[in-house]
Amino acid sequence: MQAFSDRLADAIRRCGNPVLVGLDPRFAQLPDPLRADVAAEDLAGQARAYQQFCHGVIDAVAEHVPAVKPQAAFFEELGPAGMEALGQVIKYAAERGLLVILDGKRNDIGSTATAYARGYLGSGGQSPWGADALTVNPYLGDDSLAPFVEVATERGAGLFVLTKTSNPGGGMFQDLEADAKPLYRHVAAQVEALAKETVGHCGYGAVGAVAGATYPEQLAELRAAMPHAWLLVPGFGAQGGAAADVAAAFDEQGYGAIVNNSRGIIFAHSREPYRDRFKADQWREAVAAATREMIAALREATPAGRLA
Amino acid sequence: MQAFSDRLADAIRRCGNPVLVGLDPRFAQLPDPLRADVAAEDLAGQARAYQQFCHGVIDAVAEHVPAVKPQAAFFEELGPAGMEALGQVIKYAAERGLLVILDGKRNDIGSTATAYARGYLGSGGQSPWGADALTVNPYLGDDSLAPFVEVATERGAGLFVLTKTSNPGGGMFQDLEADAKPLYRHVAAQVEALAKETVGHCGYGAVGAVAGATYPEQLAELRAAMPHAWLLVPGFGAQGGAAADVAAAFDEQGYGAIVNNSRGIIFAHSREPYRDRFKADQWREAVAAATREMIAALREATPAGRLA
Repeated sequence: MQAFSDRLADAIRRCGNPVLVGLDPRFAQLPDPLRADVAAEDLAGQARAYQQFCHGVIDAVAEHVPAVKPQAAFFEELGPAGMEALGQVIKYAAERGLLVILDGKRNDIGSTATAYARGYLGSGGQSPWGADALTVNPYLGDDSLAPFVEVATERGAGLFVLTKTSNPGGGMFQDLEADAKPLYRHVAAQVEALAKETVGHCGYGAVGAVAGATYPEQLAELRAAMPHAWLLVPGFGAQGGAAADVAAAFDEQGYGAIVNNSRGIIFAHSREPYRDRFKADQWREAVAAATREMIAALREATPAGRLA
Repeated sequence: MQAFSDRLADAIRRCGNPVLVGLDPRFAQLPDPLRADVAAEDLAGQARAYQQFCHGVIDAVAEHVPAVKPQAAFFEELGPAGMEALGQVIKYAAERGLLVILDGKRNDIGSTATAYARGYLGSGGQSPWGADALTVNPYLGDDSLAPFVEVATERGAGLFVLTKTSNPGGGMFQDLEADAKPLYRHVAAQVEALAKETVGHCGYGAVGAVAGATYPEQLAELRAAMPHAWLLVPGFGAQGGAAADVAAAFDEQGYGAIVNNSRGIIFAHSREPYRDRFKADQWREAVAAATREMIAALREATPAGRLA
């Protein structure tokens, strides 16, 4: 299979935007029609509602964006029934032509890391879960990342390593200064080394970094520190990041970054201006409208405008 | 429900040892009778074999040790069928009276961390997975740990935060020096603060730390730095740690630490002296014998001897 980095670049070129739609189903926030008749203790029923909801979101965005990012935690919260739904959602997104970046923030050591990598990485029947890429955590060091990189390169899959996260407390350890630079820059150096080793035709490698939109200055610093790494930028929308804040994550051609929005898109039915504009059963239309709004905002305020 | 820390102390007292049996099923290493007639591509069949194997191990150790530690990665590697088996294994271990520490090394931010916590933490029907405790990763900072601590204290569950891991590359980031101490000591300080806030009758809190047996000096340092934190010590056996190496993890009464052994116990059927002593269908007896051997070694060389 073609390298993940090149498949991502192709998908961004085809769509003309770098929007990543986060699939974060939360039962209390699902559109009313999907929650009707599902009891709070009915986990299998909730899992079916999650699947129906995510399939609806996928239908609404599949023609417009390059990729989706299911958040494993919300499916895991429902037990085995939730995991079954997660598998179906990944499969459906792939069938609709979307790249799937599973947000699982996994890691472990040695053969245990290999087990995670083999389980999650690889689309087209190469792995049981079938994700194109997975988010991973760097705390365990380089030998914990190596098995993921190995499996990813074998299967044309990708990785995004947590580097500078978008939450307020992210700095507690990530900003600690060692050898005259913060921990996140040490992680970035390792990510860049792995990205360079796995670089594709597009100039980016199989290994990228998660770098939050809520820290615009660090985003520019990290773009410069990791010239071969795709940046996955969370924190846009609900967490406060705006289009101008993410501009520095892109290269001059508008590549090099994908910008995630979860709640601002998938729960558009419950926020202004879409809440008034669409009826309860038109939540898919609200998702599509919010996606168009985000695409336009990124085109206006970032180098992603050069993609169109 | 009674606090996890006190339930763990009670279980250790009752068994007279601090052995934690790691449930790391790897298909190629299962006893021959369990692998017969299961094809490499038959994930559902492998998941059934994992469940049968883990139930057998649980039967062999339930009367002798306080707790088991299923490794989520090996179940996840098999897709949704594997997760179904994981749920059954946790349930069966709890029915047999064992505490279950799920090794998932999860973490995320905000409501996503809450979803992981709600999904995994809490036995006796309090959560769909039903684990008594979960391993978590500290890279995302204090606000990522807070939702886990909140759910854990509500439900009498526990956490073990990765602090100093047992792998050779663990030092790449964990040993970086910031403000005159390594990163793992910064993590340890946060763990101790959370442990102290949640301290039970036994003197230890709901939040503990993972600290590898492969670094005996750091184990002593971490025991002193976290007087209220249970230490989960991996790396014993296959990874090279010996009983004398883990002695420093205990307090003077023999509490304060649980020592994990996965491969050395569960795959005892394939190593000396058990390979020659037991037939292929006697793998449960090999598991029981290896468990007794480890209990004896810890009694001989560590303060755990005072428990008996």
